[in-house]
Amino acid sequence: MNGYELIIALGIIGLAFMSYKNKLLNERLTAIDANCSTAMKNVESHPGFIEVDPNILIGGTSGWCRGESNIDRTCKFRHLCYIPRYEEFIFFHGSKTMQSGIPRDRFSPALADLSSVPNHNTQYFNYVDIPVEAILNFDKIFLLQGNSLIFNRFNPSNLMHVFHDDLLPLFHILSELHYDINTSNTRLVLFDGHKELEYFDLYKLFSSQLPLLKHDLNKSGNALVCFEKAFIGLSNETTWYQYGFEKPQGPLSNFRITARTIELFTAYLKSKIGVTSEEFSQNKLNGILIGRQTNRLILNEGELVMELARHLRVSIQLMYLEDVSLVELIRKISSANLLIGIHGSALALSMFLPKGAQLVEIFPYAVNPEHYRPYKTLVSLPGLEISYFAWRNMDKENTVFHRNAPKEFGGIDHLPLEEQNKILSSSEVPLHLCCNDPEWLFRIYQDTTVDVQSFISKLKKAMAEAKSDKGIDASASELYPWKVQEVECKKVTKTADIVSLEVFWQPPWNLKYFMKHEMEIQYEVWIQEAFVDNTKAWILNSTRYIFEGEFVADATYYVWIRCIIINNIGPFSSVSIC
Amino acid sequence: MNGYELIIALGIIGLAFMSYKNKLLNERLTAIDANCSTAMKNVESHPGFIEVDPNILIGGTSGWCRGESNIDRTCKFRHLCYIPRYEEFIFFHGSKTMQSGIPRDRFSPALADLSSVPNHNTQYFNYVDIPVEAILNFDKIFLLQGNSLIFNRFNPSNLMHVFHDDLLPLFHILSELHYDINTSNTRLVLFDGHKELEYFDLYKLFSSQLPLLKHDLNKSGNALVCFEKAFIGLSNETTWYQYGFEKPQGPLSNFRITARTIELFTAYLKSKIGVTSEEFSQNKLNGILIGRQTNRLILNEGELVMELARHLRVSIQLMYLEDVSLVELIRKISSANLLIGIHGSALALSMFLPKGAQLVEIFPYAVNPEHYRPYKTLVSLPGLEISYFAWRNMDKENTVFHRNAPKEFGGIDHLPLEEQNKILSSSEVPLHLCCNDPEWLFRIYQDTTVDVQSFISKLKKAMAEAKSDKGIDASASELYPWKVQEVECKKVTKTADIVSLEVFWQPPWNLKYFMKHEMEIQYEVWIQEAFVDNTKAWILNSTRYIFEGEFVADATYYVWIRCIIINNIGPFSSVSIC
Repeated sequence: MNGYELIIALGIIGLAFMSYKNKLLNERLTAIDANCSTAMKNVESHPGFIEVDPNILIGGTSGWCRGESNIDRTCKFRHLCYIPRYEEFIFFHGSKTMQSGIPRDRFSPALADLSSVPNHNTQYFNYVDIPVEAILNFDKIFLLQGNSLIFNRFNPSNLMHVFHDDLLPLFHILSELHYDINTSNTRLVLFDGHKELEYFDLYKLFSSQLPLLKHDLNKSGNALVCFEKAFIGLSNETTWYQYGFEKPQGPLSNFRITARTIELFTAYLKSKIGVTSEEFSQNKLNGILIGRQTNRLILNEGELVMELARHLRVSIQLMYLEDVSLVELIRKISSANLLIGIHGSALALSMFLPKGAQLVEIFPYAVNPEHYRPYKTLVSLPGLEISYFAWRNMDKENTVFHRNAPKEFGGIDHLPLEEQNKILSSSEVPLHLCCNDPEWLFRIYQDTTVDVQSFISKLKKAMAEAKSDKGIDASASELYPWKVQEVECKKVTKTADIVSLEVFWQPPWNLKYFMKHEMEIQYEVWIQEAFVDNTKAWILNSTRYIFEGEFVADATYYVWIRCIIINNIGPFSSVSIC
Repeated sequence: MNGYELIIALGIIGLAFMSYKNKLLNERLTAIDANCSTAMKNVESHPGFIEVDPNILIGGTSGWCRGESNIDRTCKFRHLCYIPRYEEFIFFHGSKTMQSGIPRDRFSPALADLSSVPNHNTQYFNYVDIPVEAILNFDKIFLLQGNSLIFNRFNPSNLMHVFHDDLLPLFHILSELHYDINTSNTRLVLFDGHKELEYFDLYKLFSSQLPLLKHDLNKSGNALVCFEKAFIGLSNETTWYQYGFEKPQGPLSNFRITARTIELFTAYLKSKIGVTSEEFSQNKLNGILIGRQTNRLILNEGELVMELARHLRVSIQLMYLEDVSLVELIRKISSANLLIGIHGSALALSMFLPKGAQLVEIFPYAVNPEHYRPYKTLVSLPGLEISYFAWRNMDKENTVFHRNAPKEFGGIDHLPLEEQNKILSSSEVPLHLCCNDPEWLFRIYQDTTVDVQSFISKLKKAMAEAKSDKGIDASASELYPWKVQEVECKKVTKTADIVSLEVFWQPPWNLKYFMKHEMEIQYEVWIQEAFVDNTKAWILNSTRYIFEGEFVADATYYVWIRCIIINNIGPFSSVSIC
């Protein structure tokens, strides 16, 4: 009985977090700074602009782009300028201008995207051409020395957008640019035009220098701000979700992010904010319920916490994004094995959950979890080993809607009566595009009373199933066999005209280092008669085989072999002749 | 008569260069070092390998690739290793491994090309996968710190190949990597397996550190050489010629190199070897005949020099690649306005000719200049302003062939008699693939007696025509108009139902800086009726126009405008409504 009481007590400690409510957003995020590791100590207090003589730029701008379209193109520029008066970038064409990868159709629609959200027309990058001789016509020239990465935060007030659209792509591109993000000396230039806003401190973690805002580039009159070395565009390499601009939202087809990238990213962030990974026991449940305070409420969150504690023998802390510092929340999540929350951007923090943890996402009435799965997709990445369970309120009695709210928070009173009634009588939001679908907003901003008994019994079942669900080894899927070695082929006489071919070889030399698994090793053997356009192939499990068949004694045969392990096909050996 | 005598005298001084013959290749190229600018003083005497603990690499290798196929793909690797025992690269898969842009089909045929010559099967790059736990199985680990660029020289004994395949791509990629080649700290690793060979000193000019050869990576036993930061692959961005591996040789379709890249490259090289651009007079002819000493001779080069001096009033220096230092040759060519030579790799140095110069390429009997034009394509780049004249020996009497030479130098005695006779009676080498076509080799290794009178009279004519051929302004073609400004649209009543549309706007703001030319400025106006799928377009020369037609008084019209100068189409203005 002691254990039981302790768990209840922890549950109540969790509830105590509620007393921290109502601090200002800006206040709570300053906590990140206090926790930062050494890299943050180098933050400058002022942007490093220096006024320079126009002759420094008289050779002109240079630009090198890579990629096929604005969606995947990134560019590097030397001496790219920005003119605050017109709010445009300028490419000065001079005698030292180099250009590559810049297509003639760079206005259709753009040279590059300034955010990782593809092809969004508020995120287009382009520049204005000017002959460098004209540089003397500008008032003053300020140069920002060193490396700058210029990009747009897509939606800097939303944690999901911050992590998915900005921070993970930043982590990826800075790693690529510097081969190792820890050696990055690139300054971030947040060109979206917003103020710092509540998550600005997170962006600070990606540079030893203070990020600049578009506003910081404002100089009066006809002045220019030029960048010594500017990198434009974020990578799409780490994104996994599309927000429904062109088709209903959902996971990107063929997204490429892996569990390891998530793990490297969260490890980087945790090291930057001073969160060390704590010991974590599979046997002791340690849960967090992320609550919301202004809308999309769980109306009985207190009861839910208490009952979860009682029935699951879990200590549940109820935490509000508005209350605790992000650092504190990340620290808690990093050592939790159960994270519960209603659908919302805070659940992006589930990427900090340790292996073996469980994410539970609650959906309001009439919202189909299958249609909104940024977090399910995230935590389901093979190798993350986080279980996911969606709980949907199916009981109309347990929902509270707000038909007279502002329309961006789901109000429908502004709609024609017929449309209102249609929405009110619908039991599931139909598929829709982003971002102003009234039925979607109406439903997602409902408050929910969770049917605690039903919730707990379904969760228990999900957790029991999750335990038997072992993660796959992500690294094994990257291991390819190399070429087979020492291929030999001999003709074995059968009749005067007909022979068999005896072929033998050694396994690839790298296989001896694949010690993790008992792997199935297969070999694909291709045999072609010289001057005949017909090749036959065999799949074998051994490194020696006698091929019977219509092989002609005085013909020449070419033999190629490649090794296959776990669907990974190695390269062919060079041709052998017999 | 004084002037005439002086010219003859200069012609003879030119001939005096012949006395420098027969120095060893290695000797003459050391001259480059002596002339090098400051960057060369930092060359290390020893490769910077340090032996490291395997734990330094225990996080594994990371790799980031860009590009669609091995032809255009380049990759960056952190902690890529090389195992001399197998002569293969190793990618260690560990917990900190990041991978992007690496396709599953990286063996079909390769992940990247190690040279700029596309898809050549001797130039493929790939790596062997090994789990990082196995790193303890290797004897010793040597780490090369800093940035390395690993590539193959394609044909390091041939000046055309050296410049076209290697040096220009190096210049381009190092500029892109470091935004400015002068700030590059990348070490070159020449992985082709050749020794330094005769042009090694040229490669030294592209790094402050001594280039490594593949041989320098050899460590005994099971040791590894690992690269802290390795860049793989050369750019195709600057190549203009294909050597005939898949179709007969010729200029690449859609090659992208421009005169400015050539000029920036030659300026860089000249600064590195201490050649300053000298004053150059259009009125004083200053010529160079590049002679050959071992094969493909101009049999009457002395007579040719004398007669050119006499008839063109030009001082001609006869110089042999085997005799003078490359520095000296580049210095001379940089201030010459006439360069003559028989088809051969030395003519790649024509890129150092100043504006207004003339390149004359001599072709042996039966070799059609139109089929072999690497140098014509080079010097004809718009903006280089170098005239090109091909002279072909059409007189069978003036050729000396070598049917009993080794076959790689054009001997044909090893061929069947019928084939020999066919070659001997042919008056033009048919189109052929690289690299062993016997008829091509037979003809290109002929010696030629130039018909001096015919040569001079044709050259005079070509030079007279060249003078009137003004170069175009390459930079103008890069200048695009920006968006038009302040678009307004008004309906002008014609009848109760029908209106005209009066549209006016301001030119793009960047046009006022295009001061070089009287440019034709055009505007393309698109007008669409709202909710109607039919858009009409007009091209105009003014910034105000009244569109007559079937415009309906109570319809809404959308108007877009873009500016066009010299075929460069600017971006559309945002839509205006009337």
